[in-house]
Amino acid sequence: MVDLVSQLTHRKKGYTLEAPFYTDPEIFEADMDVIFGRHWIFVGVDVDVPEPGDVMVVKVHQTEVAIVRDDDGVIRAFHNVCRHRGARLVHDDKTTVGNLVCRYHSWVYDTTGALIHAEHMGQDFDKSCHGLKPVHCRSLEGLLFICLAENAPADFDEMERQIAPYLAPHNLRDAKIAYEHDLLEHGNWKLTIENNRECYHCGANHPELTVPLFAYGFGFDPKELDPAEREHAENYACMLNDNHRDWESQGLPSKEIDRLDDMVTSFRTERLPLAGAGESHTLNTERACKKLMGNLTNAKAGALHLWTQPNSWHHFMGDHAVVFSVLPIDAEHSILRTKWLVHKDAREGIDYDLQNLIGVWMATNQQDGDLVGYCQQGVRGKGYVPGPYSPHTEMLVEKCTNWYVGRMMAHLAQTRAVA
Amino acid sequence: MVDLVSQLTHRKKGYTLEAPFYTDPEIFEADMDVIFGRHWIFVGVDVDVPEPGDVMVVKVHQTEVAIVRDDDGVIRAFHNVCRHRGARLVHDDKTTVGNLVCRYHSWVYDTTGALIHAEHMGQDFDKSCHGLKPVHCRSLEGLLFICLAENAPADFDEMERQIAPYLAPHNLRDAKIAYEHDLLEHGNWKLTIENNRECYHCGANHPELTVPLFAYGFGFDPKELDPAEREHAENYACMLNDNHRDWESQGLPSKEIDRLDDMVTSFRTERLPLAGAGESHTLNTERACKKLMGNLTNAKAGALHLWTQPNSWHHFMGDHAVVFSVLPIDAEHSILRTKWLVHKDAREGIDYDLQNLIGVWMATNQQDGDLVGYCQQGVRGKGYVPGPYSPHTEMLVEKCTNWYVGRMMAHLAQTRAVA
Amino acid sequence: MVDLVSQLTHRKKGYTLEAPFYTDPEIFEADMDVIFGRHWIFVGVDVDVPEPGDVMVVKVHQTEVAIVRDDDGVIRAFHNVCRHRGARLVHDDKTTVGNLVCRYHSWVYDTTGALIHAEHMGQDFDKSCHGLKPVHCRSLEGLLFICLAENAPADFDEMERQIAPYLAPHNLRDAKIAYEHDLLEHGNWKLTIENNRECYHCGANHPELTVPLFAYGFGFDPKELDPAEREHAENYACMLNDNHRDWESQGLPSKEIDRLDDMVTSFRTERLPLAGAGESHTLNTERACKKLMGNLTNAKAGALHLWTQPNSWHHFMGDHAVVFSVLPIDAEHSILRTKWLVHKDAREGIDYDLQNLIGVWMATNQQDGDLVGYCQQGVRGKGYVPGPYSPHTEMLVEKCTNWYVGRMMAHLAQTRAVA
Repeated sequence: MVDLVSQLTHRKKGYTLEAPFYTDPEIFEADMDVIFGRHWIFVGVDVDVPEPGDVMVVKVHQTEVAIVRDDDGVIRAFHNVCRHRGARLVHDDKTTVGNLVCRYHSWVYDTTGALIHAEHMGQDFDKSCHGLKPVHCRSLEGLLFICLAENAPADFDEMERQIAPYLAPHNLRDAKIAYEHDLLEHGNWKLTIENNRECYHCGANHPELTVPLFAYGFGFDPKELDPAEREHAENYACMLNDNHRDWESQGLPSKEIDRLDDMVTSFRTERLPLAGAGESHTLNTERACKKLMGNLTNAKAGALHLWTQPNSWHHFMGDHAVVFSVLPIDAEHSILRTKWLVHKDAREGIDYDLQNLIGVWMATNQQDGDLVGYCQQGVRGKGYVPGPYSPHTEMLVEKCTNWYVGRMMAHLAQTRAVA
Repeated sequence: MVDLVSQLTHRKKGYTLEAPFYTDPEIFEADMDVIFGRHWIFVGVDVDVPEPGDVMVVKVHQTEVAIVRDDDGVIRAFHNVCRHRGARLVHDDKTTVGNLVCRYHSWVYDTTGALIHAEHMGQDFDKSCHGLKPVHCRSLEGLLFICLAENAPADFDEMERQIAPYLAPHNLRDAKIAYEHDLLEHGNWKLTIENNRECYHCGANHPELTVPLFAYGFGFDPKELDPAEREHAENYACMLNDNHRDWESQGLPSKEIDRLDDMVTSFRTERLPLAGAGESHTLNTERACKKLMGNLTNAKAGALHLWTQPNSWHHFMGDHAVVFSVLPIDAEHSILRTKWLVHKDAREGIDYDLQNLIGVWMATNQQDGDLVGYCQQGVRGKGYVPGPYSPHTEMLVEKCTNWYVGRMMAHLAQTRAVA
Repeated sequence: MVDLVSQLTHRKKGYTLEAPFYTDPEIFEADMDVIFGRHWIFVGVDVDVPEPGDVMVVKVHQTEVAIVRDDDGVIRAFHNVCRHRGARLVHDDKTTVGNLVCRYHSWVYDTTGALIHAEHMGQDFDKSCHGLKPVHCRSLEGLLFICLAENAPADFDEMERQIAPYLAPHNLRDAKIAYEHDLLEHGNWKLTIENNRECYHCGANHPELTVPLFAYGFGFDPKELDPAEREHAENYACMLNDNHRDWESQGLPSKEIDRLDDMVTSFRTERLPLAGAGESHTLNTERACKKLMGNLTNAKAGALHLWTQPNSWHHFMGDHAVVFSVLPIDAEHSILRTKWLVHKDAREGIDYDLQNLIGVWMATNQQDGDLVGYCQQGVRGKGYVPGPYSPHTEMLVEKCTNWYVGRMMAHLAQTRAVA
């Protein structure tokens, strides 16, 4: 991997990565090993498995993980593979079980992963050595993260300490999934993330999303503003300040926390105001769900943004939440998984209209997926060279790219030290 | 290939192989070179090409072989490629020809493979140097085997000496193919073979096949039996003994021969009794075909099992036979080819009902294919580790895995000695 | 790449290449680098982009090139990728633009490739350093060639000097595209080219094409002729001589120029007589289009053949022209792109019937595509060995293969000298 180290070392700061980072199957394998194999990956929400015995299977590249709520209500994660002949254990994306029974030779595991029955294995066979292999699993106020590594990054605790107060008022554990959707994107996972970390592209591409968003919330070159625009920008800055103060006084933490490039478990959050009626990511900017999330009483809670590296972003509004995870398929394809959450007692057709709830992000995801595909097609050719990020609108993309480069370097340095 | 040697050397006895043996394209290429390129591969039956001029094309991974019955009735095998520009020669799976004519530039080969016509090649061109490249081909009592290597393993003669007496009474050369079927399995060829070499999985997965089979014929842990089960097992052992004695007295060799791990051309055979009416692999356990195979007069001939490594298994009953070959596609896909044989004079709709004839194995193959696919999905993930074979029900899987490891090692050792 | 050098060095003269040259993904990548990355590639005709602002996108393996007629009428070529985030720029195969606008962040390039607008990039950003990356582009009497290398082979000028007089009377710049068609061939690009460089296969495979063609025009072994055939062959030679003399006296250069293996920019041309009515590649050998090409007044202009290495062939008749380009997809697949040209004022349904115009080559392409596929299937197997080219009918295939080997060697020698 000398080439990879060299390419990472000589990366031009402030520019997109060299083409192989988006196209090369070997670098993709390194990504899967280092980034997706050794960091906390967002995979869903507690309410994906609301009851004891509920199981959800998530595939992180080639590795399937069964997320199980055990009989005591604890959420656990296991490799979804029988310890006998390696057969896949659970075959449905979601199901409910008493025990986990392998279809091949009927080995039986309980919901804590313990092997409790295996026929014909002889007297020397020790069932206690053949339980399901566990996977690290943490719930951060209802957001589920797993880590495939033997030793998971310890600074998850620090992320939790900082983020939990922001999330708590939205009470995700008291929510339900109103809808979920998988979109196949024809691009490397890093292009999906880079696309998400800026809104420079929003004006030209997202006619629905730009209805609730304020254009000035996502950066601009102050020298390009005419006097009218400068006034708007200043008004936005004042409003943001006022809103943060108001929300915090209501017990809604709002100020930006940016830990994108100084933590192993990297994240960023901020609560942002919404335009128009100011309530939600909908076409009329009003709440999509009559029943508010958690114990919120004010629908104008803005949109709490949360990003975690390497693979998630989230919007928590007063009336609903949208959580997104990127799941790499190969160097040139990824799944974008989106889940829309509402209060668990909200009733479809009465408290919310589903199409209204999901409309903005169903459209926006497809638009983003197309853009990611355009980049993938572009970086494949001999004519691609890394291009410059805007210092005014893409500085957070640069931070995320820096995080990626830093994490890859850190691991490769470690590997070298060992060798 | 140092890694491969190392992985083979350190294989944990009694356990499934490490994941790359089921998933890695380079190990698959080594399998195709060493196992499928240098051993006897079962590809069909004499009656696939019953008449002079009949041709069958078989694809062993990327190599197509034309199996031709020549004008004198001799079955020969050739690489299915013209010696001129490399065009594929025969394009149908089965056809009948006078000569073999290349469509590209009309070069003509006779049924012995000799080039007999090639226009415009000039006076210095020697047709005798441009005949079709022959492939080793042997018929063992009507079962066709080929070997792609320059020098084929010599112990085919030993296998023939031992097996021929078992097969002779079924007279496969006097049979016809009633039906054939290809199933695409989503798994490495070794998973298909491992699945076939045990019946530990039968009870939970094969409701049709377990009708004619006796559960106690495929191994069990005696310590797990309760008194009633122990009596059944003992009764089965007595019955097996009695049946073997009776069949052998009728000229039907029956006792187990197990040469799975002490020959290059590895095989195992045994005649086993059937449950119920005791006649055939059918749902009512009665014969599917009124006309018996060969010169058999007793329909209760049990089921003669035959396995050959690396790629076949067979069931020869009194009324019909089913022959199976595994043909690898790539590291993660294989074709399972099944042919049902009846006496050549048996008439469909009169002597046999086709759905009754093929029903048990059409269902069983699909069930096995699903299981193989589950294992392939399981071994892909980071959570797979080799698991233990049951000492009571999977000892023959272990022998077949040992054979594979031994053959790979033998070849790699040879390669090293040369280098 | 030592192996590749060794394989090229030891190539058996007069024989097809070793199998990996048709199947190996790494050699394919070397082909794309050396052959398609550093030579002049035929990609279309001037009249693909007849008006200012017209754009055509051509994909040479993974590299998309936008061919643009600028506002001054100059045809230019650019890598079809935005200099900002690497997004594909033009998404239609053909379109017409004022400027080239990236959909991602609205960067704007004019038709000369200059970046004229990019928002939010800050005061230090130099637009003049971020224009579209140019690709070498030359029009040879209306045939468009591009070269992806930094430095394109200089002997394009020599090719132009020799070929331009042959092409000029057909005036391709005054033509229009009557029809175009892409055929996916299941074979390596070199098999497509080898197939095109001989007509030994025509008799057995091209019932339509052999109507207008003379069999003796494509080589034969004189010792195989019977007296009647010898007389036909001698008559053909006389007729060819007479035709060349007549055409040249009419200002239609006709004699063979063969620079297949002594130039970097390799080509061959010759004007050949047609059978029957002698006018065109049609089933009745009469002109398909009433209006003749350019300023031609004699419909019996024969068929001017032009080949350029690595990827084109062409037939220019009195009434129409057919131009072909081979565009590799991967080691085992290629696109054959065909365009039929008529005088720009010819009217479909009045001056020409489209099915009559395209019929012979639509059928012939499909037949050739099948043959290429047969070879690809043949060379994949272990039984393939390089076969001999006919010294009488495949000597030009040998020249093209020699050119390929020579160009690969020249580049690899250069690479070694540097290293």
